[in-house]
Parts: sequence; C-alpha cells; structure tokens
Amino acid sequence: MLIKGGLVYADDKFVRRDIGVTNGIISSLGKEVSGEDVFDARNFILIPGFVNTHTHLAMTLFRGAGDDVPLHKWLEERIWPLEANLTTKDCYWGNMLGIVEMIRTGTTCFNDMYFHMDSAVQAIKESGMRACITQGILDLGNKSKANAEMRESIRIQRICKEEPNITFMMGPHAPYTCSKEFLLEIKRYAQEHALRIHIHLAETQKEVQDIKKERGMTPVEYLESLSFLDENVVLAHCVHLTNSDISIMAKCGVSVAHCPNSNLKLSSGIAPINDMMSAGINVSLGTDGASSNNSLNMQQEMKSMALIHKLNDPTHIDAKTAFSIATKHGGQALGLNIGELSPGYAADILFINPLHHSMIPSNNIISNIVYSMNTEAISHVMINGKFVMLDRKIINLNEEKIYKKASEHAQKLVEKLE
Amino acid sequence: MLIKGGLVYADDKFVRRDIGVTNGIISSLGKEVSGEDVFDARNFILIPGFVNTHTHLAMTLFRGAGDDVPLHKWLEERIWPLEANLTTKDCYWGNMLGIVEMIRTGTTCFNDMYFHMDSAVQAIKESGMRACITQGILDLGNKSKANAEMRESIRIQRICKEEPNITFMMGPHAPYTCSKEFLLEIKRYAQEHALRIHIHLAETQKEVQDIKKERGMTPVEYLESLSFLDENVVLAHCVHLTNSDISIMAKCGVSVAHCPNSNLKLSSGIAPINDMMSAGINVSLGTDGASSNNSLNMQQEMKSMALIHKLNDPTHIDAKTAFSIATKHGGQALGLNIGELSPGYAADILFINPLHHSMIPSNNIISNIVYSMNTEAISHVMINGKFVMLDRKIINLNEEKIYKKASEHAQKLVEKLE
Repeated sequence: MLIKGGLVYADDKFVRRDIGVTNGIISSLGKEVSGEDVFDARNFILIPGFVNTHTHLAMTLFRGAGDDVPLHKWLEERIWPLEANLTTKDCYWGNMLGIVEMIRTGTTCFNDMYFHMDSAVQAIKESGMRACITQGILDLGNKSKANAEMRESIRIQRICKEEPNITFMMGPHAPYTCSKEFLLEIKRYAQEHALRIHIHLAETQKEVQDIKKERGMTPVEYLESLSFLDENVVLAHCVHLTNSDISIMAKCGVSVAHCPNSNLKLSSGIAPINDMMSAGINVSLGTDGASSNNSLNMQQEMKSMALIHKLNDPTHIDAKTAFSIATKHGGQALGLNIGELSPGYAADILFINPLHHSMIPSNNIISNIVYSMNTEAISHVMINGKFVMLDRKIINLNEEKIYKKASEHAQKLVEKLE
Repeated sequence: MLIKGGLVYADDKFVRRDIGVTNGIISSLGKEVSGEDVFDARNFILIPGFVNTHTHLAMTLFRGAGDDVPLHKWLEERIWPLEANLTTKDCYWGNMLGIVEMIRTGTTCFNDMYFHMDSAVQAIKESGMRACITQGILDLGNKSKANAEMRESIRIQRICKEEPNITFMMGPHAPYTCSKEFLLEIKRYAQEHALRIHIHLAETQKEVQDIKKERGMTPVEYLESLSFLDENVVLAHCVHLTNSDISIMAKCGVSVAHCPNSNLKLSSGIAPINDMMSAGINVSLGTDGASSNNSLNMQQEMKSMALIHKLNDPTHIDAKTAFSIATKHGGQALGLNIGELSPGYAADILFINPLHHSMIPSNNIISNIVYSMNTEAISHVMINGKFVMLDRKIINLNEEKIYKKASEHAQKLVEKLE
C-alpha cells in the first residue's frame, strides 16, 4: 500500500511525504515513492497513533460509578464490590466500549492490566487494535492464591501466543498487594520467557509510608533490592519519589507510565516527570481506567500533562516533548516499534483533517495537536497497515450494539450493588 | 415552540420534561406540556449551554503562534507585535472562527474583551450567538489616550444598543495598565449607564508585587479603595489573593472568571477557588484567549478545573459544582438569566446524544458530562430558542469559508512578523 502526499510528522517536523506500507510495517518514507494500492492522503496531516501505556480497559463499565470520593472509599465501597461481580462477558463489552473510545480518540496501542483477560484478547482480535496485555495478579501473601494467579496468567499468555497484534506481559499489581516471594517468582518467570513487566508503583503517599514502615525502604528501593527493576519494566504512576529513587530508576533503565488526570482525580499528586526526564528516564503517558479519569482520550491527557507541568515554568513539557511522550516514548516503554512514522515502524497512523476548527489556523501544527485538537478532527485511523476507522466510522465493529450491550452490563452490575 | 420529552437537567438532577419556549425564553417546564411547533427531544439529554466568562475571541488567529515561552516573552515578542497589525477585517474572521468553535463545543454565551469590537458585534449578529462584549481599554497614564479609548468604547456601546443578544460592558484592561483616574472615570460611566465591568485582576505574582510596591496595597485592596468593586464587576483570573482579599471580594459581591488552563499554560498559578467559594464568592469559568489555552472548549476547561482543584482533596469541586460553575455561575456573573433550564431563563440549550461512547454507560450523567463527554456528543445547540447547530452542522454560517478566511488572515499576520 502507498499512502500518497500527506503532511507527515517525521523527525519532529512536518514534511510532505509518501509512505509505503508492507505487511503492516512502514517500508519506505520519501518523496515520489512509487507503489500500488494508492491512498490519497494529500488532504490529511499524518501522525503516529497515541500509545496509552496504562489502562484497565474493562473499567469503562464503571465510568461515573464512584466519583468525587476519597481513594479508599472509592476502592472499598465502589470499585472492589463492583469488580467482585464482574464476569468475562461483562468485561468483553467493557473492553469493546473502551476500544471504540480509543480508536475514535486516536489511540492505536494500549497497555492493559485487568482480569478476565480472555475477553480483552477477544475484543482486540475483533477490532484490529494493538495492545500489550497483562493479567493483573496479586497474592496478598497467600501461597495458594499466588499459584492460582500464576496459572491464570500463564493461561492468558498461551491465548496471546497466536495473536500478532497482542504482546503478553506479566502484571503483578503492586508491591503492597504482592508478597516478596511472589514478586521474585514473577520476575524469574518473566526473565525465562522474555516477557516485560507492568506494575503500579509509588502511586500514593500512603503506599510509600506503608512500604517504608514494613521494609525500611521506599517502594523503588524495595524493588531494586529484589533486582526487579530493569529496562523491561513499566512502572505506572510514580507520583511520590525521592531524588535517590529517580537515580535508581534511571540507572536501571525502567520506563514510567505517567497518568496525570487519574493522579489528580484521586488526589494522589503530581508525578515529577521533569526531574525523571532530566535524569534520562523514559516517561510515557497513560489514562488509567475510565473510572478514575473518566475518559481514555490521550489528546486530552497529553494537554493536561503539558499544562500541569508548566505550573512553575512555561517552557516545561513543550508541545514536541508532550507529543513524543504520548507516542514514541510509549513505544519504547512497551518494547515495540510503534509511535513514530519511520521505516521499520508499524503503520499505526492517524489521518487528521486540517480543516477542523481545532486545527485552524496552522501557525504551529504540533502545537495545535497537543493544545487544541479535538479528536473529532481525526478522520481515519490505521493500525498495522489496516484502516480501523474511516470517516469516523469504526470499520470492524458494530458501534451501536457495543453501546447497548455495554450499557446493559454496566447497569446490571451497578444495580446489583445498590 | 415545544421541546418534547427530553431528559432535562433541572434543579441539579435529570428528569424527563417538556420545555415550552416563547420568544427565546423558557416559558414552561413540566410533564405533558402542550403546545405547537413540537421538537421531539426524547433521544436527547438537555442541559444549559456553557457560559464562558473570559475570552479574547479574535485571538483564535494567534492559536499556536507563541507557545511554551515565558509570559513576558509571549506578550512582548509575539502577541503585542501581532496585535499591532490587526485590522477589523482580521478580527472579524478570528471572531467567526472562535464562534464556530464555541458553538460546536457547547458554549452559548461568552464574555469578551478585545478591540476592533465592531467585528465581534457583526460576527455575533450573523451567527445567532449570545455575548457580553467590552472594548478592552487602557491609558498607561496618558490622558489623551484615555479620552480616545473612552470614545471608542462609547462608539461600540452605541453599536450594541440595537442587538438583543449582545450586552455591552466596560472593559478596563487591568489596574497596571489603567491609571487611577481612568479607572475612576470608567467606574463613574458604568454606574451612570448601568453597565457591568470586566477587568483582569491578580493574574500574576509580578502584578501583585508591582501594585504593592506602587500603592502599598494588593490589587484587590487597591480597587476596593477606589470603590470600584461591587456586584456588577467580573474579575478575570484572581490567581494570587490573600485571605483578606477574599474577604473583601466576598463583601463587595464581585464575580470571578476562573481560567485554569490559561493560568497553567502561562505559569501564572492556580487560583484558590475552593477558598473563594467557601467565602461565598460567585466563581465562574473562562477559557481566556485561544493563544493561551489553546482551545475555547468549556467541557475541557470544566474537567481541568475539577481535576486540578482535587489535588489535595478528591471531594473538592464535585461534578455538580463544576457544572454549575460552567453554566449558572456564569449567568450570575454576567447578570443574565442564562445557564439554567428554568422558566424565565433563556432557551440556550445543548442537545446531547446519550449514545455517544463518551456518555456510556449512564451510571452518572452529570459526571459523564463533566469528566468524560467529548463535545462531539453535542448534536444540536439552541440559543435564544433558535437552533444554531443541528446534527453538528452550524446553521447560520459557512464553516468552510470561515476556516479558509481565518487561515488566510492568520497567515498574513504571522508572515508580516517573520
């Protein structure tokens, strides 16, 4: 396939280029590339799709089900009781709803941690999405629970093996819900099977205090003491860090999934990403679940991030940096060749209408994308060289049915609780 | 006209109601209201339109023209030189672009301060928008400039007299750009003509320091000492306040236009709106100009506001409060019967599609509107009882022509500078 004449964001600037795509991969990028199966992109701005590096996708079912309350009340009185009744079928429709939202807002790959993950695999397959998925596992110090969780994780790993668009990762929930032995077992398993790890870390002050009390170390120091941290690990949140934590993280080569809106909504705080990036840490961007955001809109997340981190200096997180965090840093965090429009990278491409009000005038296109673009301006979305949305219609899925089914399943769960 | 069977947000909850509209005003709200000219709203959620209480609309032309730089550099090297070349024609297309963006994102009234305001009056008339407008005036201590500015303001006041959808207000720019004598003259004129006043105040730390140095008072104390502050005054920003300032403001009955995204983007800070509201001050919401935001999207502004002010407490600015700030508090700030769906209020109504992914599931509709709604879910917009957007097509304006013209005028201005 040849995508002809678009205004392409490559090497941090916009240039008019043709993009050759072979087997879902960008095979060439240049002027006057020749090829068959031509798609006329002259009326579009082409950018890589967003990479959302921390989600709990099926939680779209709980959107709005527990807002404006403190974290412990949110978890204990709303989320955990709701989750206790979740079935694989519920999660399937929650995942589908989330995938529709992500495609329509320009996300072409997400990094998920949840349970009933067969439903996620199924939804991803049907939609043509790209994802990294982990079964979120925890043992709370209970050996037989640890064994059962590990078995379930391995079952999902097997299901993922056949799927070209899915990368399986290990998903220990957090250092305060997984025992030391379980964390070590998971790390060993991940190394043996060349799997990356996705874990929550240092999200709240309470977590840091509790771990310090129990272990005499910060959460980062604790994981470092287990030789858990390396370039195959994605740490979600990282709100509360010491300077020494940041040095350790940089030395180990971990990536961070920064979730600014969720961290504000649950009063967790603001993660020190300027300091992390100055230390050389790869910072990527995530929305977290829809119950603590409450959307999965990466453009909005990117803008929020850029604005929040300007609080003390307007030059911090400029538009190009914000865009890189939301795209190629995500690819790096997940170990995938995504998030850039370059030969060898996946053809995961957003086709943006430059004649949408939010993109006008074009004084600075990348600035428009970060600070003003409404995702309504995204006309088409391509993943792996195939269109998954054309003219804002999702190709492979029945949107109306998904909205109806997701609504029904959400209502059933919420009513059961009330 | 009778708007039949919609799910209406009235008295802070959603109820199925009919809305009778007479001469642009809601004349009745109830079950089984009878009337002619029926519009079937059974498939819609109906909410009041957003009220944007601080804008510089024509600055859409400068969107992206000066991002990620410190405030003084932004003003001195970009905005002021760009503004020096602005013509009424440029502003007309900038205003048109802004009006299209506002309608498409659900704003039905805005409070503007800028210059070449004939162009704003013209654009508002053609679009069917509602607005309060002020000619932004300043004298920098120069008496002949003061006279000229006052004359221009009075000229715009006359133009506005014939316009039912436009309310003219006085717009002294700020206490650091207007002399004491000019402020007193403006206040006297406003009182004589029963006009409200729109002014910037306490936006930056530098402003507070400068005024303290010059006057020995905070900006709020200074305006209070001139008997400038009362219930007819809207203060934009109010980022840097003492407790005593807040008491003075509450006592005087002023309203505040809070602009969270602009204040973050220019590193001005976070306005203490929880404290202001606890003291009883009417806090409303504004986007500021598109050059410091860079959008005019009130849904996004409302979400940013709610999240930022949860930094220390997740119960702060809950969804209902955030929505009130973005709607009825705006009406109160502008002294207009807008921002509520109640008899006697203007029929300024958003028709929201409940089957948009960002509104699903409907666990909590007001929470969805504040935290997850994509403005793409707004199907129709009514102002003053007349549709200005139907099925996301703007009724009275040629969108394509506006995008083309605004782009051309912006490009001409930016090129002149480079």
